[in-house]
Amino acid sequence: MPQLHRPLKVALVGYSFMGSIHAQAWATAPRFFDLGVDPELAVVCGRSADAAGSFARKFLVDRVETDWRKVVTDPEVDVVDICTPGKLHSPIALAALEAGKHVLCEKPLANSLEEARQMTMAAENAATCGVKSMVGFSYRRTPALAYAKQLVDNGSIGTIRHVRAAYLQDWITDEDFPLVWRLDREQAGTGALGDLGAHIIDLAQHLTGHKIAGVSALTETFVPTRPLPSTSGGLSGTSAHSAGTAERGEVTVDDAAIFLARTDRGALATFEATRFASGRKNALRIEVNGSKGSFAFDFEALNELEFYDNTQPTSSEGFRRILVTEPEHPYAGAWWPAGHGLGYDHTFVHQIADFVRCIAQDKTPSPSFRDGLQVQQVLAAVEASAAGQQWQPVGHVPATA
Amino acid sequence: MPQLHRPLKVALVGYSFMGSIHAQAWATAPRFFDLGVDPELAVVCGRSADAAGSFARKFLVDRVETDWRKVVTDPEVDVVDICTPGKLHSPIALAALEAGKHVLCEKPLANSLEEARQMTMAAENAATCGVKSMVGFSYRRTPALAYAKQLVDNGSIGTIRHVRAAYLQDWITDEDFPLVWRLDREQAGTGALGDLGAHIIDLAQHLTGHKIAGVSALTETFVPTRPLPSTSGGLSGTSAHSAGTAERGEVTVDDAAIFLARTDRGALATFEATRFASGRKNALRIEVNGSKGSFAFDFEALNELEFYDNTQPTSSEGFRRILVTEPEHPYAGAWWPAGHGLGYDHTFVHQIADFVRCIAQDKTPSPSFRDGLQVQQVLAAVEASAAGQQWQPVGHVPATA
Amino acid sequence: MPQLHRPLKVALVGYSFMGSIHAQAWATAPRFFDLGVDPELAVVCGRSADAAGSFARKFLVDRVETDWRKVVTDPEVDVVDICTPGKLHSPIALAALEAGKHVLCEKPLANSLEEARQMTMAAENAATCGVKSMVGFSYRRTPALAYAKQLVDNGSIGTIRHVRAAYLQDWITDEDFPLVWRLDREQAGTGALGDLGAHIIDLAQHLTGHKIAGVSALTETFVPTRPLPSTSGGLSGTSAHSAGTAERGEVTVDDAAIFLARTDRGALATFEATRFASGRKNALRIEVNGSKGSFAFDFEALNELEFYDNTQPTSSEGFRRILVTEPEHPYAGAWWPAGHGLGYDHTFVHQIADFVRCIAQDKTPSPSFRDGLQVQQVLAAVEASAAGQQWQPVGHVPATA
Amino acid sequence: MPQLHRPLKVALVGYSFMGSIHAQAWATAPRFFDLGVDPELAVVCGRSADAAGSFARKFLVDRVETDWRKVVTDPEVDVVDICTPGKLHSPIALAALEAGKHVLCEKPLANSLEEARQMTMAAENAATCGVKSMVGFSYRRTPALAYAKQLVDNGSIGTIRHVRAAYLQDWITDEDFPLVWRLDREQAGTGALGDLGAHIIDLAQHLTGHKIAGVSALTETFVPTRPLPSTSGGLSGTSAHSAGTAERGEVTVDDAAIFLARTDRGALATFEATRFASGRKNALRIEVNGSKGSFAFDFEALNELEFYDNTQPTSSEGFRRILVTEPEHPYAGAWWPAGHGLGYDHTFVHQIADFVRCIAQDKTPSPSFRDGLQVQQVLAAVEASAAGQQWQPVGHVPATA
Repeated sequence: MPQLHRPLKVALVGYSFMGSIHAQAWATAPRFFDLGVDPELAVVCGRSADAAGSFARKFLVDRVETDWRKVVTDPEVDVVDICTPGKLHSPIALAALEAGKHVLCEKPLANSLEEARQMTMAAENAATCGVKSMVGFSYRRTPALAYAKQLVDNGSIGTIRHVRAAYLQDWITDEDFPLVWRLDREQAGTGALGDLGAHIIDLAQHLTGHKIAGVSALTETFVPTRPLPSTSGGLSGTSAHSAGTAERGEVTVDDAAIFLARTDRGALATFEATRFASGRKNALRIEVNGSKGSFAFDFEALNELEFYDNTQPTSSEGFRRILVTEPEHPYAGAWWPAGHGLGYDHTFVHQIADFVRCIAQDKTPSPSFRDGLQVQQVLAAVEASAAGQQWQPVGHVPATA
Repeated sequence: MPQLHRPLKVALVGYSFMGSIHAQAWATAPRFFDLGVDPELAVVCGRSADAAGSFARKFLVDRVETDWRKVVTDPEVDVVDICTPGKLHSPIALAALEAGKHVLCEKPLANSLEEARQMTMAAENAATCGVKSMVGFSYRRTPALAYAKQLVDNGSIGTIRHVRAAYLQDWITDEDFPLVWRLDREQAGTGALGDLGAHIIDLAQHLTGHKIAGVSALTETFVPTRPLPSTSGGLSGTSAHSAGTAERGEVTVDDAAIFLARTDRGALATFEATRFASGRKNALRIEVNGSKGSFAFDFEALNELEFYDNTQPTSSEGFRRILVTEPEHPYAGAWWPAGHGLGYDHTFVHQIADFVRCIAQDKTPSPSFRDGLQVQQVLAAVEASAAGQQWQPVGHVPATA
Repeated sequence: MPQLHRPLKVALVGYSFMGSIHAQAWATAPRFFDLGVDPELAVVCGRSADAAGSFARKFLVDRVETDWRKVVTDPEVDVVDICTPGKLHSPIALAALEAGKHVLCEKPLANSLEEARQMTMAAENAATCGVKSMVGFSYRRTPALAYAKQLVDNGSIGTIRHVRAAYLQDWITDEDFPLVWRLDREQAGTGALGDLGAHIIDLAQHLTGHKIAGVSALTETFVPTRPLPSTSGGLSGTSAHSAGTAERGEVTVDDAAIFLARTDRGALATFEATRFASGRKNALRIEVNGSKGSFAFDFEALNELEFYDNTQPTSSEGFRRILVTEPEHPYAGAWWPAGHGLGYDHTFVHQIADFVRCIAQDKTPSPSFRDGLQVQQVLAAVEASAAGQQWQPVGHVPATA
Repeated sequence: MPQLHRPLKVALVGYSFMGSIHAQAWATAPRFFDLGVDPELAVVCGRSADAAGSFARKFLVDRVETDWRKVVTDPEVDVVDICTPGKLHSPIALAALEAGKHVLCEKPLANSLEEARQMTMAAENAATCGVKSMVGFSYRRTPALAYAKQLVDNGSIGTIRHVRAAYLQDWITDEDFPLVWRLDREQAGTGALGDLGAHIIDLAQHLTGHKIAGVSALTETFVPTRPLPSTSGGLSGTSAHSAGTAERGEVTVDDAAIFLARTDRGALATFEATRFASGRKNALRIEVNGSKGSFAFDFEALNELEFYDNTQPTSSEGFRRILVTEPEHPYAGAWWPAGHGLGYDHTFVHQIADFVRCIAQDKTPSPSFRDGLQVQQVLAAVEASAAGQQWQPVGHVPATA
C-alpha cells in the first residue's frame, strides 16, 4: 500500500459542474462520516489557469495546475480525482495508476472499449500494490437506491423477472441549443447512451445482481446539426444555454438510445436514455419486479423509494412511499432527522466517504474499474446492435468497436 | 344499410367479465348520451344455458341461446357483440357480417393474422352495404386518453420523439395460479402480448398518429407449467383464483413481452406487456414526448392526465395533473360535475354510444377491423422478432405466422 | 313491516343531477349485487312535467308526476327517494313516513335542526312498524373509505389522535358565477357548510367511531352578491355556468366554513368546507392518525387509500397506496378485476344495494335519520360558534338555531 | 456599522443538530454564492468542552469555549449564531447585541413574549449602529417556497381566500419515548406549537403578505408522562431514541396544537402542528388558494411546488408539479442542473448567504427580530385561546402570557 500523507492529499482534475460537486464532497465527507483518515483537496488542475484559480479560491484549495501530467506524478499527491470529459479519462488514469496514486474516475470509464480494458488492467495491476481505484457511479449511493439494494439482498424482492430503467432529460429539445462538447463524439464518446445510459446499466446490474447477457437496441439523433457554441468554452457546456452562432455543426452522438436486454439469470429488461423527454429534468427511474416484491424509484423524488411486498395480504398492500431518511437507512443516519431530505450532492459525499474508508482500511472499492469496463461492454453491445439491427450478446464486441 | 329494428336489437355472445361489462354499457349508454336510436339487449348467448340464463335474469334480457350460429343469422338481431375468447372471434364475426349484422368485436381481433385478414375483408365488403363493424379497443375512450389525442391533434405535443408504453399486471405471479384459458395458446392466441400488448400498440398508434414500422422483441414464459383448473370453467378464469389440482399442464403462451419500435415518422418507442409486475394491478401506462409537450397516463389513476407544455416558461411549468372530468373534456360532460370521477366501465359506455351513433348516422366506426388487423400485424412481427432474435419490419410477416 | 310489491316500487322525487345518479343506481344495483328483492323505478316526480317526462323516457320510468304529495301516499309506491333541495326534505319525508313508505333522503337531512328532529322522530316511530329510512351520506360507501372503516374497526389505527378533513371545490371562484339555488339560504339552508361540510362531519364521526363534542368555527361569504340567473331554472344550477344577467342578488349562505373540534374520546380534528379552493374540483379529503397507524384519502383519487402501519419497522414502512379494487375489499368484488377502477356513481349503487337489502331482510339501515340529525347538530354548533366567536359544545344549540 | 474582520469571524453557540447544520452552512455558503465578504467559523461554544471540542475538530474550528458570556463580548467575534434551546436565546442575543455583534438566532425567537419584546427592542436599537439581526425561519429559503412567494408577489395567485398549513411529525407517538428537553416547558417554552407551529405561522404570513388578526385554538398533551432520559444529555435529544429509565416525569408542553385564523385581509386559515401524525416525518405543508391561482407544498417533497393557474382554460389546467430546480428559480441557479434536487441543509446555506450579504452590503435582513416577535404574539394568542376556549385577537395578549 502506498505511503499516505496525513491528511490525504487529493488532486482534482476538472473544475466544471462535476469538479465543483466533487470538491464540495471532499470537504463535507469528513464532517459527517468517520473516515479513518482526513482528506484534503490539495491541488486543482484544469486547462485554464484563470478558471482553475477562481475555483481554487472558492474551495480553499492552495494549489493550481494546468498540466495534469505534472499532477499525476507529484509526490505530494495521494489521490487523483478525474472529472474531465471522457476523452481524458484513460490517459490521466493510466498515468496516475502508474505513479501509484489512488484514482477516482468519473463515468463512463472511457470513450472506447479498448481504453476501458487498458484502464482495468492497469487498475488491477496497481491494486496488487495497494492502489485503490473506483468509478463514479454515484447514483448507487443515493440512500433510496442503497436501500433498494438491501431489499434485493435480504430476499424481499425474490426472483427478479423485470427491470424497467429509464434516464430521461430534456435539455436539448430546443433545436437551437448549441453544439456543446457532450454532443461531440470525439470528446464524449457517445451521447445520451454513455452519459445517461451508463448510469442505468450500472444500477440495473448492481441492484439486481444480474448481468446483462445480450441486448437489442435502437439509437437516434433527432437533431442532426446545431449552432456552434460562440465561445471555446473549456470543459463547460451543460448548464448554460449560450446563444448559438449562425453556423451549425454536426451532432456526432446519439440523442437517445433504447434497448431491451435479457439477463444471465432470466430477467427481461427495458432501457431508455434520452435528452428529448420534454418535461423530464433528471428522471432517472428504475423499477424492479420480483416474485416476492417490487421497488420503484425516480431521482426527481430522490428521497423516496416505492416498495411493494407481494408476501403480504393484498387487501392491505400497495406501493409504500418510503421516505429513505431514517437512521436505519444507508447513509441517512449521518445527516438530519427523518423526513428532512437530502439532495443530489449528498450522493457524492457518500462516494467520497466510501472511497476514503477503503483507502484507510485497505479494502477494495466498488464499483471497480472492472465494473466500469463491464458497463462499457454493454454500451458497446448497444451500439453494435443498433448499427446491425440485430440481437447482440454482451462481451462479444471487438475492442475496436 | 340494413333495416334496423327500433329499438336496435343486440345479441351478446359471451357472458363472463367482458359480457357483463358490455351488457351494463348497452343499458347505460342511452341514459347519458343522445344516440339517435335506442339499443336493446335482446339475446344473450353462451355455452352454458344455466349461466346464460342467470346472466339474462340479472340484465333483464328476454332471450337466451347456447348456439351462436343460430343468433348471428336471426332476423330479430341487428347487432352482434362478440365477447368470447379470441378463438371464436373469427367464425362468429364472419357469419354475422355475412348475415348483414353490425358487429362489435372484442380485442385482439383474432388469434392469427390470417383470421384477422379474412375478418377485415369481410367487414369491408359488408361496409359497402352499410354494415358497421368495430373492434373493442375501449381504452381509447377513457376521457383522459381521448383528451390526450386532442392534445396531439391540436399541435400541443409537436413533433413526437418518444413513446413509452407499458401494460403491467400481476395476477399470475403466484406459480400455483391455475392454467386458465388465457394461458392456453389454442384459446387465447398469445398471452400478455395479445391481451395487454394489443391495447398499448393500438393506443400508441392511435394517440400519436404514427404507425409502427418495425420492432425488436423478447418474450418469456417465466412459469412453464401450472395446476390444471379443477373445473371445466367455461369461459371464466381471470377473476377467481380457483384452487389448482395436483396435476400441472403446460403454459403455451408468453407471460411477458417487451419490444422496441421505430415508427414511420421517426419516433422511438418502448413497449412492455406483463402479468408478472408485482403490485401493478392494471397499470396501462403511456407517455409521449414531443417537441412542444408531453403527456403521461396510468390507468390506475384513470381520471388524470399529466401534461407538460414545453412552450411555456420553464420556471412555472411542470407536469400538470389534469382531472379529465370537466364539461369540456371528451365524454365527461355527459356525466357528473368536475372532479367526481369515472370508472373502468364508463369507457365501455362511451364505446357503445359511439358505435350506436355510427349505426344511426351511417358513419364509419373507429377503430375498424382494419385497425385491428394492423395491430395484429404488429403482434405477429413481435412474435417473429422474438423467435428470430432480429429486427422485424411490420407487415412482412407471412399470414401463417 | 309494510307489504311490498315484487318488484319493489320506487318513487324518485327530483330529476336533476342527484336524481339521475339515483336513477342509474336503482337500475344498476340488482345487476351486480344480490338484493333479495328487485327494485323498480316506477315513478319520477318533479316540478316540471316536461323535464320529468324527458327524464322518465331516458331512464325507462313509466310514470311521471308533478305533485309529490300524490306520490308519497300512493299505494303503488313502496319506497320514496328524496333528491330535492333541502327545503323539501322535511315535508316529503314526514308525509312518506306517515304513509308507511321506506324513505331514502339526500343529505343534509334538513335545512334546520327543528326539521331534522321531527324527521328523526317520525322515522323512529315508523321503524316500529318496519318502515326503513336512511340518509344519503353516499361517500361512506366508497370502497376506499369503507375499507378505512375496517382498518379502524380491526385495530389497525389504534388510539385515534388526529382527524384532518377538508372538502374543497372551486366552482364559484368566479365572482360572476350566478346566484343558483345552492347559494340561497331559504332553499339550501347553508352553503359550503351543509353541502360539503355535512359529508366530512359524517365521515369523520363514522370512520373514527368518535362523536364531535364541541367546535370552534369561522365562516365567510367572500363574494356577497352575484348575478341573478337568467332563467327560473327549476332545481338545476350546479353544473351549468349559465350567463348571469346584469342584476345581482345577495348570497345568503356561507362560501366557506372552517372549524376545529374535540371529540368525545379526546381526538383533535380540523375541518374545512369551501367552494373557493382554486384547482380543487372535488377534493373530499380525510386523514386520520392513530397510535398504530394512519390513513389518508382524497376523493379526486377515489380508488386509492393511503395507509401507514406504525407497528412495522420504520425502515420498510411508508404510506401504502392501496388500490381498493381487490375482491377482498368492500363492494369491489362485485365489479371488475383488480385495478380497473370505479367512479363516483358506484358509491350510489352501493347505497341502494345496502338500503334494499335492509328492506328485504328487515334490518336497520345506516346512516339513520338520527345520524343525520346528529350531523345537523354539529352544523348548528358550527353556525353558533361562528356567530358568537366562541367555543360551542355540540347538542346545546336551541332547535330554533 | 461595526468594524468587521476579514474574513468575518463567526461564533456558533450550540453544537447539536442545529449547530452542525449551521456550521456546514457557514462553510458551504461562500463556495456557491458571491457574498461580498468571506465568513469563517472561528469559535464554537457549548456546555460540554469535550463535545464542543469534538465538534470543532470535525468542522475545522480553531477555538472552543464553554461560556457563552465570554464569546459574545469577544472583540475577535463579528457574528453570534445562536443554536441553543429557546431558554438561552434571550440572554445570549441581548448580550451579543449590546456588544455590537451581528446576531442570527434560531426560532422561535424566545420562550416568552416578554423576552421576544426585549430582544426586538435591543435589535432595533443596535440596528441604528449598523448591527444586523435575523431569526432563523429557514424554510422561507426553500427554493420552492421562495418561488411560491414570487407567485404571490407577481399576482399569479390573486386575492387570497384560504391558507391551510400543517406541520406534521410522528417522533413521539411511542408513549415510552423519553422526556427530552423539547418536552420540557422550562427549556422549550412550548411543544409542537413553538417548534413546528412557529414555522407555519411565519410561512403563512410571509408567503401571503397577510397578518393573522385573530385565532381560535385547541392544544393537547396526549401522553402526559414519559420516561426520564437516562443521561443528562446536554442539549441533545431529538435524534436519538435513548432508552428511557423506569421513572417517568411530566410532559409540560403541548403534543399538538390546532387553530383557525382570520387574517387582516379577510382570508381564512387552518393550522395544525403535531408530533403525533403517524407516518408523517417532516410534513411541513402549506396550500394557498386565491382568485387567480393556488399553490401547494409539502417539505417531504421539498424540490416540488404544485401550482394551479386559475386564469388558464380549465380543460388543460391541473396542479403543475414544478421541479423548483431551474436556473430561473430562487437560489437554484447556484447549484446543480435542473432536476438534480437539493436537501434540507441547502436552505440553511441560503439563509447564511442572505445574512452575510446583508452584513456586507449594510442591508436589513429578513425575517427580523420584529418578525419573530410577531410570530411570538400569534403563539401567545394561540395559547390564550386554547386556555380560555375563546376567540383571541392577536397582539392583545399581555406580555406575561
